Amino acid sequence: MPRSRFSGSLNSPKVDVAIDMGNPILNLTVDGFLKIGTVAATRAVAEDAYHCLKKGSISSHNFEHTLKKMCKEGAYWGTVAGVYVGMEYGMERIRGTRDWKNAMIGGAVTGALVSAACNSNRDKIVIDAITGGAIATAAEFINYLT
Amino acid sequence: MPRSRFSGSLNSPKVDVAIDMGNPILNLTVDGFLKIGTVAATRAVAEDAYHCLKKGSISSHNFEHTLKKMCKEGAYWGTVAGVYVGMEYGMERIRGTRDWKNAMIGGAVTGALVSAACNSNRDKIVIDAITGGAIATAAEFINYLT
Repeated sequence: MPRSRFSGSLNSPKVDVAIDMGNPILNLTVDGFLKIGTVAATRAVAEDAYHCLKKGSISSHNFEHTLKKMCKEGAYWGTVAGVYVGMEYGMERIRGTRDWKNAMIGGAVTGALVSAACNSNRDKIVIDAITGGAIATAAEFINYLT
Repeated sequence: MPRSRFSGSLNSPKVDVAIDMGNPILNLTVDGFLKIGTVAATRAVAEDAYHCLKKGSISSHNFEHTLKKMCKEGAYWGTVAGVYVGMEYGMERIRGTRDWKNAMIGGAVTGALVSAACNSNRDKIVIDAITGGAIATAAEFINYLT
């Protein structure tokens, strides 16, 4: 039976939320969702903050719009990251090794899944799978370099 | 005086090219350019191979188009990756630590530079810098997760 535990700790500059779903692959997925969702939400805030700065005014309508965009972008990026992390970990368990091929396959599957969820054109799904695999492989290579 | 040495070794499934530019930051940049350029070129080939498979015919015109796309996409992705890797390494040297902030700053600078090279609209450059930083941070976080 998977147990769900929620433990939160609040430090001064960062919020650390740990959720234990009782399954390593689920843990990673949730972790990826939260972390990347936060990054995407921050990006949305930064983008809108720049627009506000440029216009020189902050209206409540703007704030509502930003909040909505934060949720939408955070959920989208988070889902993509969660699927990718879960896939990569799954690949590692199935293949038994850690290398860039995991990232490639994980990226390709994620690209195909996200594309399939958004639209149903078959050609687009294949192209998105190829692009996803390429981006994941590139990120993995850059990661080894630095 | 920076010396340039070129040594190539050909293994059965992969080509390993090592170029020593005599400077660690240049080495990393060239390495990133070559590796990510290869990934992008492979992606272009895979995409066009799928199109060929679907149409069921291979014409010389197609091949020429693929070759051109390989060069163009390889150069573009390679340049972006080279700039990013160089920036991240530079940040590491300046700040003296390795953490996700290097990736964020490197991604932001890369996004701004690439955007500035492509078009001159100031707003677009700032938004691209924010997006670049967010993507680099997300990739760094995913990297720590898996």
